[in-house]
Amino acid sequence: MSRETTQALIERLGQRLGPAGLLTAESDVAPFAIDWRRLFPGRPACVARPGSTAEVAAVVRLCREAGAALVPQGGNTGLAGGAVPDGSGTQVVLSLARMTAIRGVDPVGLTLTAEAGCVLKVAQDAAAAAGRLLPVSFAAEGSALVGGVVATNAGGINVVRYGMTRGLVLGLEVVLADGEVVDGLRALRKDNAGYDWKQLFIGSEGTLGVVTAAVLRLAARPRHAATALLAVPDPAAALRLLTLAQEEVGDSIQAFELISGPSLGLVAKHAGLRSPIGEAGWSVLIEAASSLPGLRDAMEAVLATALERGDAVDGVLAESGRQAADLWALRESITESEAREGTSVKHDVSVPITAIPDFLEEAGRVLAAQAPGTRVNAFGHMGDGNIHYNVLIGPEHAAGTINRLVHGVVDRHAGSISAEHGIGQYRVDELVRHRHPAEIALARRIKAALDPDGLLNPGKVLARD
Amino acid sequence: MSRETTQALIERLGQRLGPAGLLTAESDVAPFAIDWRRLFPGRPACVARPGSTAEVAAVVRLCREAGAALVPQGGNTGLAGGAVPDGSGTQVVLSLARMTAIRGVDPVGLTLTAEAGCVLKVAQDAAAAAGRLLPVSFAAEGSALVGGVVATNAGGINVVRYGMTRGLVLGLEVVLADGEVVDGLRALRKDNAGYDWKQLFIGSEGTLGVVTAAVLRLAARPRHAATALLAVPDPAAALRLLTLAQEEVGDSIQAFELISGPSLGLVAKHAGLRSPIGEAGWSVLIEAASSLPGLRDAMEAVLATALERGDAVDGVLAESGRQAADLWALRESITESEAREGTSVKHDVSVPITAIPDFLEEAGRVLAAQAPGTRVNAFGHMGDGNIHYNVLIGPEHAAGTINRLVHGVVDRHAGSISAEHGIGQYRVDELVRHRHPAEIALARRIKAALDPDGLLNPGKVLARD
Repeated sequence: MSRETTQALIERLGQRLGPAGLLTAESDVAPFAIDWRRLFPGRPACVARPGSTAEVAAVVRLCREAGAALVPQGGNTGLAGGAVPDGSGTQVVLSLARMTAIRGVDPVGLTLTAEAGCVLKVAQDAAAAAGRLLPVSFAAEGSALVGGVVATNAGGINVVRYGMTRGLVLGLEVVLADGEVVDGLRALRKDNAGYDWKQLFIGSEGTLGVVTAAVLRLAARPRHAATALLAVPDPAAALRLLTLAQEEVGDSIQAFELISGPSLGLVAKHAGLRSPIGEAGWSVLIEAASSLPGLRDAMEAVLATALERGDAVDGVLAESGRQAADLWALRESITESEAREGTSVKHDVSVPITAIPDFLEEAGRVLAAQAPGTRVNAFGHMGDGNIHYNVLIGPEHAAGTINRLVHGVVDRHAGSISAEHGIGQYRVDELVRHRHPAEIALARRIKAALDPDGLLNPGKVLARD
Repeated sequence: MSRETTQALIERLGQRLGPAGLLTAESDVAPFAIDWRRLFPGRPACVARPGSTAEVAAVVRLCREAGAALVPQGGNTGLAGGAVPDGSGTQVVLSLARMTAIRGVDPVGLTLTAEAGCVLKVAQDAAAAAGRLLPVSFAAEGSALVGGVVATNAGGINVVRYGMTRGLVLGLEVVLADGEVVDGLRALRKDNAGYDWKQLFIGSEGTLGVVTAAVLRLAARPRHAATALLAVPDPAAALRLLTLAQEEVGDSIQAFELISGPSLGLVAKHAGLRSPIGEAGWSVLIEAASSLPGLRDAMEAVLATALERGDAVDGVLAESGRQAADLWALRESITESEAREGTSVKHDVSVPITAIPDFLEEAGRVLAAQAPGTRVNAFGHMGDGNIHYNVLIGPEHAAGTINRLVHGVVDRHAGSISAEHGIGQYRVDELVRHRHPAEIALARRIKAALDPDGLLNPGKVLARD
């Protein structure tokens, strides 16, 4: 794109959106130009901030006429660089942040309709004010926007019970690459009338269309909660504990988190927090919630049986909300403690749940043999098969080599190199190595059908042609 | 297609599949030529019965070379004529019924991998033998095949708790229109590595590809169950009862079924079954299940509170499995009783749950005014917003007119004309009337991208060009 074309586009966008709708000054666009981990610096032509679906459609059409690429951006809290522009200075960042409306909350039908720019926490609070629960929850919920949550199929801490965001999206409104608005904002639990086209846009990271609004499913708020921390001898015991918990408390399990000994070591060292049950090879944090009485008794039975069987060597059941929060603080301090310890290579992998012990054993063995001096900080959502297998490295280690080693073990267990963070630009090249050529070809066919000019978030999820 | 081309194709199919893999005699193909309701008689060129994914791919390639259309067929239990050929004598029925293998059951990771031809009941039994639950369940489960269950995104009686089939599919293997096999048989709970292409094939009724195998999610088996029948004054009271039940027993609700007085009248007349709580304007059947003790107490509290508030006028909680089965028999006898009563026009509609009372009131009023003499038999999955709004008609009534009236009311409440039965060939023309043109255009774009020659189940879901 010539500089003149870009300038002309900026002028047209300004005319259409008005001063509140367009940012061009370098200081204004700077926060939109780089991801929050500051790994992927870019330089946009400008930042378009439409205030309505019609304005989003107008931006898409104007960009298309000019042949300019668009990068949809929500709260810019992603971990894969999927929402930031490249360095060409020709891409238009399409920020949804001005479309903040909650269009409705239905506490009886258990739905909430929000525009793409609504902060996730605001949506959660609106559901809570109506006495209901919006189940999707993760660390960045105070900044993440609903549109981005949907476009990245966000995971988080409640997936074991409520599923990924995909399972919570009942209806969707999107703007296609040609500026056409498709309104599927239906608040229906069941709808088998034709192709469920909204699935295409959920999790496709803005490469197939722009999500402008969504109908999300709410849940009843459970009345009782129980949080337990158990020390277990090894991941195989943690797996037996998972089965025991599923049998005793069933679908009431909201979180089943595995924490390695080294992870707790980092938390003790940098956050000053210690597990109330002392040193442990591995720990498991279980949270369960239900409207039924009897939850606490069932959790106590889980602890007693696990101790009796030797699948746990110690355990504590929180006596209060404060104690539960203290247990969660251990888990939630891992990432920051890791950052203070030094440089790390992060992996957001999943394997079949049953394969977790083998995966951990094999990955540890491979790293010890082929990358001596690295240290593993493994933790994550065991109930979902999702392990954050992070590796602390020294200057002698290359991140790419560590990636290859860990993802090689993932492949041998038929896993995924991105359980919840997505591909963005961070894992584009790796995706091709880890998926069958037929899957990549199918993805390219879908991309070509929906974005024939390749102007929607190019280079994300799939490499440019 | 010329008769010679068809004959040559049949010969090539016979060579590739052997005698067990191809049916050509009229008496042999007859059961595959018509749906079980006998509404859509067709005439296939032949019935191909491949025994493996490679053979499915070969059939697809041979048909494509010959320019012959393919109609994938599972257990042929669908209600929309989606799995039967047209009358041209040129379409090849692709029966998956020989691919029956259960490739694995993982009771710890809670997954089951089955080929497309596995009978749903067989898969349920395999899960049960491993102490787990395959939650999808509906009347035809003894004949329906896993591939068809996935391809139609089947619903059923447990949707309020476990969701539609879509939510239970973790991995998928499909054969594309060009014969390419795409293997996505991953047993992962979380996988955000690239487009979730399997969603395209779930619920698209064999028009975009052929499902050959699937990994399905299992659940823990709840230990306790409680079944209640309540008489309620009207649908608005039933809605308040739903909210009460959600607050008291939460996610343990497995079914929340609304039954109209006339429905119970038909059951009494033709099946000789009577509600233990006598006459009622409307009834609600609630089933809940949990591993936690306290379920029965919570359900008793629901009954007591509903009676106290006047949202129920009578109610019974089953004292035994036998009593629970008797309550379910009332619900399950409705369809057959309706058939014995006379000719009916069936509707499988959904509306936002909160809109159900208004929908029922308005639909009744419209029919009384514009189709006098019709009688309504309304019942269904209220917890999912899904009402089977069937209308008994006389010789003076035209089915198409009744459809239009009922579906018009559905539109006014932003509902769906097919909640769970799909579109098939039955609702093809209506779909175009009830969805936005932008949605139909998007569906056609998806179809063109995946089946450019239009040879996969043509005329189903979308009308032929």
